[in-house]
Amino acid sequence: MAKLPELAPEDFQCPLPITEHDTVQLAHGSGGRMMNDLIRKLFAWAFENPILSRLDDFALLEVGSVRLAFTTDSFVVDPIFFPGGDIGELAVNGTVNDLAMSGARPLFLSVGVILEEGFSLEELRQVVVSMKKAAKAAGVQIVTGDTKVVNRGKGDKIFLNTAGIGIVERPFVPSASQIKPGDQILVSGTIGDHGMAILSRREGLSFETPIRSDTAALHELVREVLDVGGESVHALRDPTRGGLAAVLNEFAAASGVGLRIFEEAIPVREEVAAACDLLGLDPLYVANEGKMVAAVAPEKADEVLEAMRRHPLGKMAARIGEAVEESPGLVSMQTVLGAWRIVDLPVGEQLPRIC
Amino acid sequence: MAKLPELAPEDFQCPLPITEHDTVQLAHGSGGRMMNDLIRKLFAWAFENPILSRLDDFALLEVGSVRLAFTTDSFVVDPIFFPGGDIGELAVNGTVNDLAMSGARPLFLSVGVILEEGFSLEELRQVVVSMKKAAKAAGVQIVTGDTKVVNRGKGDKIFLNTAGIGIVERPFVPSASQIKPGDQILVSGTIGDHGMAILSRREGLSFETPIRSDTAALHELVREVLDVGGESVHALRDPTRGGLAAVLNEFAAASGVGLRIFEEAIPVREEVAAACDLLGLDPLYVANEGKMVAAVAPEKADEVLEAMRRHPLGKMAARIGEAVEESPGLVSMQTVLGAWRIVDLPVGEQLPRIC
Repeated sequence: MAKLPELAPEDFQCPLPITEHDTVQLAHGSGGRMMNDLIRKLFAWAFENPILSRLDDFALLEVGSVRLAFTTDSFVVDPIFFPGGDIGELAVNGTVNDLAMSGARPLFLSVGVILEEGFSLEELRQVVVSMKKAAKAAGVQIVTGDTKVVNRGKGDKIFLNTAGIGIVERPFVPSASQIKPGDQILVSGTIGDHGMAILSRREGLSFETPIRSDTAALHELVREVLDVGGESVHALRDPTRGGLAAVLNEFAAASGVGLRIFEEAIPVREEVAAACDLLGLDPLYVANEGKMVAAVAPEKADEVLEAMRRHPLGKMAARIGEAVEESPGLVSMQTVLGAWRIVDLPVGEQLPRIC
Repeated sequence: MAKLPELAPEDFQCPLPITEHDTVQLAHGSGGRMMNDLIRKLFAWAFENPILSRLDDFALLEVGSVRLAFTTDSFVVDPIFFPGGDIGELAVNGTVNDLAMSGARPLFLSVGVILEEGFSLEELRQVVVSMKKAAKAAGVQIVTGDTKVVNRGKGDKIFLNTAGIGIVERPFVPSASQIKPGDQILVSGTIGDHGMAILSRREGLSFETPIRSDTAALHELVREVLDVGGESVHALRDPTRGGLAAVLNEFAAASGVGLRIFEEAIPVREEVAAACDLLGLDPLYVANEGKMVAAVAPEKADEVLEAMRRHPLGKMAARIGEAVEESPGLVSMQTVLGAWRIVDLPVGEQLPRIC
């Protein structure tokens, strides 16, 4: 190990230990409790500022007279081609969606590419063409980029990073902290499709109806929802890593409400449910790449749900529960058998490299 | 290999072959001719738009009434700690510098972290603390981020991506395309320090005077230069991968001038020259992380050079040559022995993972 840089006394205020581990675990990237701890105790501590501290999936910036949303995501999905999409499409849609959840109009993306020596240039071309198509479909321009190459065995084919800038034109910005008791919880469609598409490919499982990733750009669906719901749409988030369970827990933690969810109301494709059963997974924790969760004031919930269902990406939208005053910070779910259980953040790693 | 997605006819217009290779080579990330080819023939082709086509190290955006600079860089340097800095400091300064070269005031950074399972959390903490300090020193806020973890052996400790936003407040933006015959070429200090600091550490070389990376944020030096030189500062660029030789070739190619450079005018530290000799490297091609090259109209060149020298990061600034009408697109150098030679873009890979 190289000699570490000297530390000044103020550097020691970091609330260590970050976890009980000395080294990075797969679960530190899972979207669950260990990742949350790492982000809060290390990154949010070190880079502390009021913009970052909101811990939304985007930063809200004021530059001159303009309000911007700014976000970044890296993509390390394995395999890089999968039913329904590839890493390139995912990298564009993922960042477009993080911008969209702020109500911003996505405008510009950057792309950082890390290639492994020996990766096929033909596969690289396919990934780049996917990014081109996805950017065109989402109406964003890729305006700046960077390419690095690492030695064979020090990377894995291709890792992508996209950062994105959107313009915030609406006065009201949805944020998890704004959820109130009585808010209705809506999900825009079936859950678990992306994660199970990746896992099925990785495990070599095949089903009569193949499971396809739901990767899609959600900015137009969000626009419809905000046009109808306005300021009654208190919070929006796309349930990627950690799945629906992670978003519901983030909603409850950020706003201090309790959430009550009904399992039978949550849309899950039959083949996804079957694959989850086979692999011992709970679809609540499985990643999505083309879905969103909304917390909407009760008087507008029906209209917003109808607006979702009118959009091709929201046909299967459903109301799955509501925010309550009781059990602040907790997510409870009534199972299909009628019993209530706590839906916690995932702790360990179910699904590494799902996005 | 997974089945590749179907291609539509328009996807075949990509001017293949990108190179004579079928797979990614280390040289595709070297800052030289092979990287140039990959960027022009694949990325710039696929993402074609007028902003990207400038091929500066930043994108110039108009959002509402505001002009922004936007840039991204990934960092895969090996080793991650080296004399004079570490990957965290590099990641902040590198993106601050790309913004600064547009004359923008750097404001906000995003950070994407890709961790290898098993990486030391204590070393991660050191890297994050370095980023915190570098951001504070450069006056930028880290406002959004993302963390991914890949399995052991599928990454290498830590890769970082930073994207940055700056505000462009000056009416005139330096760009390589604006260089004119007669322009004087200035460099802000000694070249090759960063690359040789990394290589010395990697090769286990030690010298009486240790070679330290020059990593530094250049935005204040740029401000001094633009305050004095104004619109006479036609182009600015920081010579990172590919070194001074790459920037000079990019200047000549973008503006269609010839460049004449004098080897004896180029500042190189004695220990860097010695290390280059030992390893058979030419300092012209070695990366820098705290230097800039400027092309300045002749009537302002002296004043700009003086302004550089007044700043702590520009004490060793020097005038190293000029732009001429002859030999458009070519860089010629008079060696210390008096002969003239062409300084070409590097083709192969001298120094993998230098940043």
